[in-house]
Amino acid sequence: MIIILKPHMGDDQIEQVISSLKAYDVAFDVSKGTDITVIGLVGDTSSVDREKVQTHPFVERVMSVSEPFKKSNRKFHPENTVVSVAGRQIGGKQLAIIAGPCSVETEQQICSIAEDVKKSGAMFLRGGAFKPRTSPYAFQGLEAEGLELLKIARTQTGLPIVTEIMSPKYVERFDTDVDVIQIGARNMQNFDLLKELGKTKKPILLKRGLANTIEEWLMSAEYIMAGGNTNVILCERGIRTFETYTRNTLDLSAIPAIKRLSHLPIIVDPSHATGSSMMVEPLAKAAVAAGADGLIIEVHNDPSCALCDGPQSIEPKAFERIMTQLRAYAELEGRTL
Amino acid sequence: MIIILKPHMGDDQIEQVISSLKAYDVAFDVSKGTDITVIGLVGDTSSVDREKVQTHPFVERVMSVSEPFKKSNRKFHPENTVVSVAGRQIGGKQLAIIAGPCSVETEQQICSIAEDVKKSGAMFLRGGAFKPRTSPYAFQGLEAEGLELLKIARTQTGLPIVTEIMSPKYVERFDTDVDVIQIGARNMQNFDLLKELGKTKKPILLKRGLANTIEEWLMSAEYIMAGGNTNVILCERGIRTFETYTRNTLDLSAIPAIKRLSHLPIIVDPSHATGSSMMVEPLAKAAVAAGADGLIIEVHNDPSCALCDGPQSIEPKAFERIMTQLRAYAELEGRTL
Amino acid sequence: MIIILKPHMGDDQIEQVISSLKAYDVAFDVSKGTDITVIGLVGDTSSVDREKVQTHPFVERVMSVSEPFKKSNRKFHPENTVVSVAGRQIGGKQLAIIAGPCSVETEQQICSIAEDVKKSGAMFLRGGAFKPRTSPYAFQGLEAEGLELLKIARTQTGLPIVTEIMSPKYVERFDTDVDVIQIGARNMQNFDLLKELGKTKKPILLKRGLANTIEEWLMSAEYIMAGGNTNVILCERGIRTFETYTRNTLDLSAIPAIKRLSHLPIIVDPSHATGSSMMVEPLAKAAVAAGADGLIIEVHNDPSCALCDGPQSIEPKAFERIMTQLRAYAELEGRTL
Amino acid sequence: MIIILKPHMGDDQIEQVISSLKAYDVAFDVSKGTDITVIGLVGDTSSVDREKVQTHPFVERVMSVSEPFKKSNRKFHPENTVVSVAGRQIGGKQLAIIAGPCSVETEQQICSIAEDVKKSGAMFLRGGAFKPRTSPYAFQGLEAEGLELLKIARTQTGLPIVTEIMSPKYVERFDTDVDVIQIGARNMQNFDLLKELGKTKKPILLKRGLANTIEEWLMSAEYIMAGGNTNVILCERGIRTFETYTRNTLDLSAIPAIKRLSHLPIIVDPSHATGSSMMVEPLAKAAVAAGADGLIIEVHNDPSCALCDGPQSIEPKAFERIMTQLRAYAELEGRTL
Repeated sequence: MIIILKPHMGDDQIEQVISSLKAYDVAFDVSKGTDITVIGLVGDTSSVDREKVQTHPFVERVMSVSEPFKKSNRKFHPENTVVSVAGRQIGGKQLAIIAGPCSVETEQQICSIAEDVKKSGAMFLRGGAFKPRTSPYAFQGLEAEGLELLKIARTQTGLPIVTEIMSPKYVERFDTDVDVIQIGARNMQNFDLLKELGKTKKPILLKRGLANTIEEWLMSAEYIMAGGNTNVILCERGIRTFETYTRNTLDLSAIPAIKRLSHLPIIVDPSHATGSSMMVEPLAKAAVAAGADGLIIEVHNDPSCALCDGPQSIEPKAFERIMTQLRAYAELEGRTL
Repeated sequence: MIIILKPHMGDDQIEQVISSLKAYDVAFDVSKGTDITVIGLVGDTSSVDREKVQTHPFVERVMSVSEPFKKSNRKFHPENTVVSVAGRQIGGKQLAIIAGPCSVETEQQICSIAEDVKKSGAMFLRGGAFKPRTSPYAFQGLEAEGLELLKIARTQTGLPIVTEIMSPKYVERFDTDVDVIQIGARNMQNFDLLKELGKTKKPILLKRGLANTIEEWLMSAEYIMAGGNTNVILCERGIRTFETYTRNTLDLSAIPAIKRLSHLPIIVDPSHATGSSMMVEPLAKAAVAAGADGLIIEVHNDPSCALCDGPQSIEPKAFERIMTQLRAYAELEGRTL
Repeated sequence: MIIILKPHMGDDQIEQVISSLKAYDVAFDVSKGTDITVIGLVGDTSSVDREKVQTHPFVERVMSVSEPFKKSNRKFHPENTVVSVAGRQIGGKQLAIIAGPCSVETEQQICSIAEDVKKSGAMFLRGGAFKPRTSPYAFQGLEAEGLELLKIARTQTGLPIVTEIMSPKYVERFDTDVDVIQIGARNMQNFDLLKELGKTKKPILLKRGLANTIEEWLMSAEYIMAGGNTNVILCERGIRTFETYTRNTLDLSAIPAIKRLSHLPIIVDPSHATGSSMMVEPLAKAAVAAGADGLIIEVHNDPSCALCDGPQSIEPKAFERIMTQLRAYAELEGRTL
Repeated sequence: MIIILKPHMGDDQIEQVISSLKAYDVAFDVSKGTDITVIGLVGDTSSVDREKVQTHPFVERVMSVSEPFKKSNRKFHPENTVVSVAGRQIGGKQLAIIAGPCSVETEQQICSIAEDVKKSGAMFLRGGAFKPRTSPYAFQGLEAEGLELLKIARTQTGLPIVTEIMSPKYVERFDTDVDVIQIGARNMQNFDLLKELGKTKKPILLKRGLANTIEEWLMSAEYIMAGGNTNVILCERGIRTFETYTRNTLDLSAIPAIKRLSHLPIIVDPSHATGSSMMVEPLAKAAVAAGADGLIIEVHNDPSCALCDGPQSIEPKAFERIMTQLRAYAELEGRTL
């Protein structure tokens, strides 16, 4: 941490600033110039509250030089994390393809889609049971019943299931029933939920919040990891910008950014990011080319009748065609599908 | 709801689109032009899923013409809502001024600040017990102990207390202990929490999410109101933009927007919006001039020692000075302080 | 400027970084810690290219500690700048109120509005002759003829005229004909135009760009001032965000920010910021309460027939009512109208 | 265009709205429902000013149903536009790769880089002569001298040259000297410059503005095309968002969006979008996978000594490696390099 003092501070004033920080277990390097005096804090500065230092009357500005995330930081864990899920791996050589409908609707629907996506090569089945909807008057998901239908589809196809949790009160149930627990964009900073999931060992798919920076995203991963659960998979799903042609703006630069900053696997959701079925194929290919560890794609047997998110769903046939193409892109990246 | 068909659709195709909507209890007005055919849905369209209609192969675009919020909508409730809290009112002639520290730290601290802000004319005491922090390594608040300290400060000063809830598991406790329950920006779309609070009758201070539109904000109010709790107070606290000089960008145009769209009271938080103590005074005055029903202001007896959010806190003396000024602005608006 | 080196750099490597900067007339303060080494550059670092230093292989990060703007910086010019225009002042005790239609349409129209706004107390007449329109098929303004009509209105009312320039080729003409030359949001970083205007002595109203930070805005003022023209008036007119209810998001925190960073006057345009006539009054009052030095307000005698920007125009009667109210707000701020 | 009237409008009021639009050459379809009355405007509505209609006292909302861009619209020109430049094509089967330094610095520098990028397969040489810099104190480019050096490099290598124009006064010179004229992001809505370039027949590389929507971008293309110059190439280069880890956020969904909306070719600039050399490779590959017609990449022989934009430049060797990889990705897309 670097503390820049206000101009023309004398030794007395420098000493006062240092005194105010004596409680922390850090050393101080003072560098005095003609205009500016800088105090460098050396040692473990993670406990020093930057905002608090900022308020000292002699301080002009405080700058962090080390990243605030520790357990998710590649500096302290250079090799990639590979998350194991029911005998499969996310973050390894094989790309993790997760596919399925936005919402679980009926047994017939979820089982049929599960069979279809499995045939095309999907490794995981997704499906929403508890749905976060902007409107209280919109379909909220089949909830507990939806979970049961997902389990039936898993039994029939062998595909591990990925579904979203919305409340700490369901953690135990999801821990038992589900293979990968998804945290949606709106709950990325639901810190109570993150803490509860940190107490499990279950793989967590952590979606990036609509208006969250890459650093805040890693800090949310840190909440889970600080609790002891290191099985975190990040998922880029678009951020909110001024552009209205797409639902959100998919930020593929997050892939090389995360690869540099962190050892955690990162997958991409082109369906929710764009809200447009015709964009799924080009952006799925782009995500693989940019180094993603996997994809999560919405597939519905009848998008025009889907109970939610129809416009971005693709049919099983389109999914099959995309998978065929992705195989070649994966190969170029030294990956398999 | 207005459905615009793709160009050159014949009667057969128009009929097919209408058929696909026969399940809804609505009437259809078809208007055919040389280029465009439009189908107007008349009646209660709130159950019609716009996104689903959008996926029909003959449909070009779907547009909503009625707002999706009902209970918070001024159209169906023209007079202002006034929320009663422990004998005081929010949304009436008197401006609601809520003041206090970001975090409750000690009994001495919260009681002393409570006395100070009361003397200056604050009507409510705020103070964080459960704190949503970006980092799991930062101070998370005194939690349950903080609530107890707030209650002591209430007993001493008579000021009703406002504090943030972060998990559905505390709803019962907050319902008993707290006068106004705050939902923070990060939890504005924590729908499970909103639903739980909708079951109480407790006044809810609903902060606008960092990246949420005014419409989404009202839809979150709708979640609470749909459950039966109409005591909702909105709080504008800045949105996330590209500008980095301020922490967020305070959107004061939200005040006239909310006043037109909704009957709910709206207050403004200049402290969190800007993250800068020197901006509290000008923006507090601006908020009153723009028609806000109140303010929530961070006050700390020693901002440079505050355990969080020091840079935006002001000292009791500064608060007193601001209150003196605000009185004159309130008067110009036909309000009292 | 502060250069943070990569971890574990030895004396040799530190020396190499310093050598690479020997061409600059600056001194070096090295502060070595166990984790981090920091080199402080002391002296006039304005010639040092931060981005270039950033690419040095031993450099982790470069941070500026001094603001890049000089002539517009309050640090080097503590007292407020007051710009004189035809015997009137902008930035002094009296608020500068600029009013008039978006576009000049006819002699009758501009003269009649000029008379009206003068009666209500406006000090300047605005009116667009050259119009920046998103579409090439939309009305582009009366251009040269519009300028002539503005001059007629000036002769009749004595109000100095404010109008927008769109091309360097008109600088000479505007310098002769116009009292205040406006640079629109879309041209805030049209550097060639800024340079040409820097060669005149004409007061320049510099609108903030739709997606420009406060620092970039001051750097554009710096382009004009570096050329020798210090008569710059800043104008906040809303920034582009995700919110679609208003045309843009008015950033009133820019007022205290500019007041702290710069000595230049700042006025506010509530009409273009919101795109909504019903928001003009509350946000005009808010701007004055937040410390603005003036306002620019669209007034049209028949908003529903205005050739552009009708939805945000107000009628002369509404303008009169707003002015009456503003007087009281100005007084509270120790200003006059 | 669809006009939604305010609730409960009678026949008289409907008639009044229609009367106010009688001047336009359009037909009217009225569809009356119990709640809502809608008037559809049929025919060529491009001359109807939507904002003006919006201000009518009986009108609730106006919605456009047809896109405002005509000449760039794929609906009226289904086949792809292929722009010919000095015997090469942009928008055809072969990807257009444009490479070179941010700024032209010396003859030796530009010629050496030109040779290098040509060897690796680049089809065009880029290099800035006139540079748009945020600060007036930063290097502004070699200007006219830079153009001369580019011409020397063209003579030596045969590579057509691409460089940015900043002022209408240079249009004639650029038309003579340059092969593709670039309009930078900051000038995307410099309408005077667009109009001047519309009078030439020169290929124009139109970069997307930092805060401009896809629709506004196409409207700027429309300015050039309306003047008679249909040789427009679009270039996505990142938009401004809240994320600060990258300089801007590259919006690759703009590729399928433009492909659907327009027949114009679109290329991608991963260097300026991210501001980070390590992101060039993954995002260049992603752009090709998403369907881009080409790339513009910054290459400098010594990025740490580049006079501007060093951090995002790559060395010729890195460029060669990227080109080798891109070949395979191009092939998967049925393209050549």
